[in-house]
Amino acid sequence: MKKLINQPADFVRESLEGMAVAHADLIQVNYEPTFVYRADAPVQGKVAIISGGGSGHEPMHVGFVGRGMLDAACPGEIFTSPTPDQMLAATKRVDGGAGILYIVKNYSGDVMNFEMAMELAHSQGIRALSILIDDDVAMKDSLFTQGRRGVGTTVLAEKICGAAAEQGYDLHQVADLCRRVNVHGRSVGVALSSCTVPAKGTPTFVLGNREIELGIGIHGEPGTERVSMKSGDEITEILARWLCPPQASLLDDTTYSRTVKEWNETKGKWVDIELLNKPLQKSDRLLAFVNSMGGTPIAELYLVYRKLAEICEQEGLQIVRNLIGPYMTSLEMQGCSITLLKLDDEMLKLWDAPVKTPSLRWGV
Amino acid sequence: MKKLINQPADFVRESLEGMAVAHADLIQVNYEPTFVYRADAPVQGKVAIISGGGSGHEPMHVGFVGRGMLDAACPGEIFTSPTPDQMLAATKRVDGGAGILYIVKNYSGDVMNFEMAMELAHSQGIRALSILIDDDVAMKDSLFTQGRRGVGTTVLAEKICGAAAEQGYDLHQVADLCRRVNVHGRSVGVALSSCTVPAKGTPTFVLGNREIELGIGIHGEPGTERVSMKSGDEITEILARWLCPPQASLLDDTTYSRTVKEWNETKGKWVDIELLNKPLQKSDRLLAFVNSMGGTPIAELYLVYRKLAEICEQEGLQIVRNLIGPYMTSLEMQGCSITLLKLDDEMLKLWDAPVKTPSLRWGV
Repeated sequence: MKKLINQPADFVRESLEGMAVAHADLIQVNYEPTFVYRADAPVQGKVAIISGGGSGHEPMHVGFVGRGMLDAACPGEIFTSPTPDQMLAATKRVDGGAGILYIVKNYSGDVMNFEMAMELAHSQGIRALSILIDDDVAMKDSLFTQGRRGVGTTVLAEKICGAAAEQGYDLHQVADLCRRVNVHGRSVGVALSSCTVPAKGTPTFVLGNREIELGIGIHGEPGTERVSMKSGDEITEILARWLCPPQASLLDDTTYSRTVKEWNETKGKWVDIELLNKPLQKSDRLLAFVNSMGGTPIAELYLVYRKLAEICEQEGLQIVRNLIGPYMTSLEMQGCSITLLKLDDEMLKLWDAPVKTPSLRWGV
Repeated sequence: MKKLINQPADFVRESLEGMAVAHADLIQVNYEPTFVYRADAPVQGKVAIISGGGSGHEPMHVGFVGRGMLDAACPGEIFTSPTPDQMLAATKRVDGGAGILYIVKNYSGDVMNFEMAMELAHSQGIRALSILIDDDVAMKDSLFTQGRRGVGTTVLAEKICGAAAEQGYDLHQVADLCRRVNVHGRSVGVALSSCTVPAKGTPTFVLGNREIELGIGIHGEPGTERVSMKSGDEITEILARWLCPPQASLLDDTTYSRTVKEWNETKGKWVDIELLNKPLQKSDRLLAFVNSMGGTPIAELYLVYRKLAEICEQEGLQIVRNLIGPYMTSLEMQGCSITLLKLDDEMLKLWDAPVKTPSLRWGV
């Protein structure tokens, strides 16, 4: 293992210390418990957005803290959920009196800990709701998940909901919007190489010289299928066809319904919410997100984007916005993920709104 | 070799096609000869800035075309200089009547071809000057270079000079500024792994499991020294000490003078210009640029930044701006480079000015 790190156990903390020094105008970092928060938090009267999850996916989430996106992010150790005490401390630090929205990727540890954090927040008189992201169409039920995993749509939901909160949406409006982003987003990924968790020191899985793994998640957990190496266009076509009609989708995504638990504020209890993805249709407007898993150069991502755009055009889908680069990684893994998010006017406007974070910035 | 590409010979073109589709609002791509240019070019009355070089370093240069940075970029094949006909065609396309500045990294092929392009431009009545970037303190004279190589400072010079041109600086003012940026910038890099040029299909060099190479360039050409793997802090300290006092520098950088050829418009001929780097001094204000070579995750870059900031603070140097991420890469190489640029008020203001390109954007 060759990495620019010191002791593996210190990696997350030392990296955050670097972020804190580099971006003192935007963020601050609290240690014990660990969370990253907006330098100007709490913003009074604004809904605060908090996300979090295992580290090793940078810039997500810590690089997305700042104006127009997250109020706080709770990083766990590498590929390990943060704890409820981190989430509660972040919650208390950024609460501006208008409530907290937790954006939670669907991994069992994250889900459980954010549930506990939310109940703790409630017990301290802080309003909080949470929305689950479960956009990975590759598989249901993985090593770390019941249901579908939460992947690329998370980044898009953080941007869109962050803008909404900045513009004065109330807690229920932001939560409803986040739920809508989730059911309109679909993702799938491919690994060309594994990644090495520093504390372990050896690759999480082994791929042969001519093998790739389709349908991977973001922790090196198994994907859907291991196949022989193909051209960039062929790989993109496989991934895109899991997302686009007419063949979509491996999981019958066109009618994928599931029940998720959400806190109902009026009833004061957890209730079941049914979510349903609707198939993409001709003339839908999309945000296309081509994401590096960490070790894939941007020039390759553009080659993937080229083929993706061609397929979308064939299908009558309009890509009206895109995001291309390393935003949700698995350490140094080579490979990429593709997310297609169906946009409506409101989501489009919020996507375009100013954002100023260490790793996503425009308009300011 | 596993990459998201099709035929190696088509990689550069197909990647550019993806960029063209993704960023049609910002850039256009011309093929045969190949160059990327601002969608709104020519900007009448503005000095046009053109750079270029081998591909495989993305986002540099093609990702830096747009308002406030480059007017055009000429990408060669992977690690191969672009040709004078590409540069001439780009020149004619973006010439807004106020002259052209070529920003040229010091690699023999680039230097020779930009010289030819400039003479061709002159013969067609277009004013053009060129400034060489030779900021790599690790070594003089490499496989591809006479003198020092041009590395990280190039990105900073493109941003600063692009802003100056946008603000109405004339050709000589932009050229003088670019020369000043170059002599105030210093860079050094380290490789933890090699990279694989698609047409070759095997790694350019081989590093052992516990070896790293210090003082590498951006083409997999040999570095200064191959040493055993060290901690992130130790590696950062070695690199930083090549850039900062008191030990600076390997190349006696504190008094590094050299003679470079520049076109003198008044005399109508090439003249020798003497350049001299001055040592960094206490209370100097710096822009610190920690750059991924392509395969190193951003969390590791922040760990490097943390140690770099600590060393600069010890030395009384003030980091007032930073840039951290993959901006000048060597395909999927793991490793990083550090650039320290001494800023003056003018450079600082120009750095902060709005920029809108595919890969660097703020303020708009």
